[in-house]
Amino acid sequence: MTDNELLARRERALGKGAYLFYREPVNIVRGEGVYLFDDAGNRYVDLYNNVPCVGHANAHVVEAMTKQAGTLNVHSRYLHESIVKYAERLSAHHDKSLTTTVFTCTGTEANEVAIMMARFATGGRGIICTDAAYHGNSEEVRKLTHTPVGGKGEIRSVPFPQTYRPIKEGTSEAELADLYLAEVGRVIEEFAADGIPLAGMLVCSIFANEGLPNIPAGFMSRAAELVRQAGGLFIADEVQAGLCRPGRWWGYEVTGFVPDIVSMGKPLGNGFPLAGVIAREELVNQFRTSARYFNTFASSPLQAEVGNAVLDVLENENLCQNAVNVGAYLRDQLASVPARYDAVADVRGHGLFAGLEWVSDRAAKTPDRKGAVEAANRLKNKGFLVSNAGALGNVLKIRPPLVFARQHADLFLGALGEVLQEMYGHS
Amino acid sequence: MTDNELLARRERALGKGAYLFYREPVNIVRGEGVYLFDDAGNRYVDLYNNVPCVGHANAHVVEAMTKQAGTLNVHSRYLHESIVKYAERLSAHHDKSLTTTVFTCTGTEANEVAIMMARFATGGRGIICTDAAYHGNSEEVRKLTHTPVGGKGEIRSVPFPQTYRPIKEGTSEAELADLYLAEVGRVIEEFAADGIPLAGMLVCSIFANEGLPNIPAGFMSRAAELVRQAGGLFIADEVQAGLCRPGRWWGYEVTGFVPDIVSMGKPLGNGFPLAGVIAREELVNQFRTSARYFNTFASSPLQAEVGNAVLDVLENENLCQNAVNVGAYLRDQLASVPARYDAVADVRGHGLFAGLEWVSDRAAKTPDRKGAVEAANRLKNKGFLVSNAGALGNVLKIRPPLVFARQHADLFLGALGEVLQEMYGHS
Repeated sequence: MTDNELLARRERALGKGAYLFYREPVNIVRGEGVYLFDDAGNRYVDLYNNVPCVGHANAHVVEAMTKQAGTLNVHSRYLHESIVKYAERLSAHHDKSLTTTVFTCTGTEANEVAIMMARFATGGRGIICTDAAYHGNSEEVRKLTHTPVGGKGEIRSVPFPQTYRPIKEGTSEAELADLYLAEVGRVIEEFAADGIPLAGMLVCSIFANEGLPNIPAGFMSRAAELVRQAGGLFIADEVQAGLCRPGRWWGYEVTGFVPDIVSMGKPLGNGFPLAGVIAREELVNQFRTSARYFNTFASSPLQAEVGNAVLDVLENENLCQNAVNVGAYLRDQLASVPARYDAVADVRGHGLFAGLEWVSDRAAKTPDRKGAVEAANRLKNKGFLVSNAGALGNVLKIRPPLVFARQHADLFLGALGEVLQEMYGHS
Repeated sequence: MTDNELLARRERALGKGAYLFYREPVNIVRGEGVYLFDDAGNRYVDLYNNVPCVGHANAHVVEAMTKQAGTLNVHSRYLHESIVKYAERLSAHHDKSLTTTVFTCTGTEANEVAIMMARFATGGRGIICTDAAYHGNSEEVRKLTHTPVGGKGEIRSVPFPQTYRPIKEGTSEAELADLYLAEVGRVIEEFAADGIPLAGMLVCSIFANEGLPNIPAGFMSRAAELVRQAGGLFIADEVQAGLCRPGRWWGYEVTGFVPDIVSMGKPLGNGFPLAGVIAREELVNQFRTSARYFNTFASSPLQAEVGNAVLDVLENENLCQNAVNVGAYLRDQLASVPARYDAVADVRGHGLFAGLEWVSDRAAKTPDRKGAVEAANRLKNKGFLVSNAGALGNVLKIRPPLVFARQHADLFLGALGEVLQEMYGHS
């Protein structure tokens, strides 16, 4: 069967519009560590997938999954030690105030729980988000997706904080922090004026979907304080940011604040559906009592043992430190690109999560989504998987499994150099 | 560590109010087929768990999971054949109009998709449900949980159809069908009067949470027709009803209608998080185009191979027919209980899904939730796991894995006889 025949079957079975990456989609059949292999045997270095954080087909995780699936996998209304142990281990990697977890299967479900938890705890309904975010796809959580500033509902947005295309040009970073905080204050006042009590503010700790902006110093902790003073809770979405990706266990450690509620997802199960929300004990108790929340597949022994196995590898292989070391090396090397190519105007990121800002006019900062997409397709053809992202779609997103090593960074840097040369000539 | 020590750790790690079954919770450590085993080595016959439909720790499913997890597990934006094949196989077991699937991880997510799909397709917002239902736990889907008749929002309920406690006493079944349909018609009119265009009606095909009522003949197909005439779509929630449980592949085959949209969940992955929505191709295409839906862990090669393995076992072991045969035997035997014990007033069900209606006064039909709970606890102590359910919590729910055999039914019937005798004396 050809890829075209498979594509036709796929359109019928899954529907037209089930999006595929790349102009010519890849038919991936095998994974191992940082590598993926297509049906023709071509090898790709994976710089896209954050979910298989400890590497594709990690043997320790597969073994734990196999052992537990062959022993027991039931819901959480029977007593079982594994899920308790897993929750305790997760908590030990968090700020000491964050002790108690509600498990779910997906990040969307985690953000549903986080929002409900804030609403039950505060009695409020108003949620503040940023204007170029994505936090999931349910009816309620979708309202947080690319929410225009100035809305009138229970979910309202502020401009996400950044220094590259700041809310006001020519201001200092300190002034910028004040300006972005004033936006948060404005929405708090508007909620109050409209009789919608504040429940909280929910943001990605590193604004991953917004394009990994450099955040004016102090913004995060001061925004959290502002929200708390107004009676709300500050929710960190760590679905993309967390679990060693940014070189610390959680994004909030990198961007300098302590959240009241944290949602977690993608990498927790290395691809097994596992997500959840951690918060202070009293917030979770109140949520459990009010919501009577139950999730058939969550908090299961199988989720627990997969999650425990992922923590084993992260801890034993010290992958947070690897994210620091290899991430710093990669970004140091990338830092020289803007001086050589006008198309790449900015290099940003934390740990093993980097973004390259693609522009068609350096001075005007004109976003060049097409350029970023072209680069991603050319890199794919050379055996390197990346994608484009960001508020304007013009950020090349580099986010490999955390077992990514310096040798893989060097391979990628070579290929990126070739692509830039092909697209823009000699530097 | 004692169970009490584990309970204390659990309250801290997962929160107070993370509900456990039974007055003295069981610490289950192993499963095999229809059996579960606790930490003291006690064996239980499982008559509760519908999720492990092909049996606890099914070797074929575990093998497929292991093989695929050790090969590849990535998101669905790369081309992959397994998920296409799985969707095709699911469709082959459905009405021929239902061709195209959107996969999710949980039943809640499936019902989110189903409601969005109906709303995108119709342009309407109004959803009709029944008044003692449960369809999931997100902000939107929670609105379908025990929704009082007479509400004014976008989601409004009708009394669920039944013959045991009918909407009007002393009427024939044909009159009852008319009366329940009139309720659907009334809500359709109220939506229209309130300027809320109808999107559809969403019900469990066998009203499992309502207590498996006997449905006045013709209600389901006529309700679907009524909803379609008003511009809506008819959505069958098959999360509990489907996948051979009722003695056919789907509940809608048993209760006699063809839905426009079907949500599926619990048993699909035998405990692996796997759920989805199947509908006509044009409905899915429209949803995909409008919603740009993506689910990180869904439509993965791992979900696909686990789902395929479950279908293998259901097909090869002919478990639909087993549900017919053993279910009929079990319900035939149970049918003699009401004549012997006044406390058990009604025996209902389909395939391997049965309910016993517990009452404290046979003539007044006074629901006896305490009696059903007491019976469940006594059965647990004898090594049989069941629970109580239903609109009034007084229905003993019998819903074993589909590999349940006549020998297991006989063991259960013996224990039930003992419990009834202990609770109510000789019959």
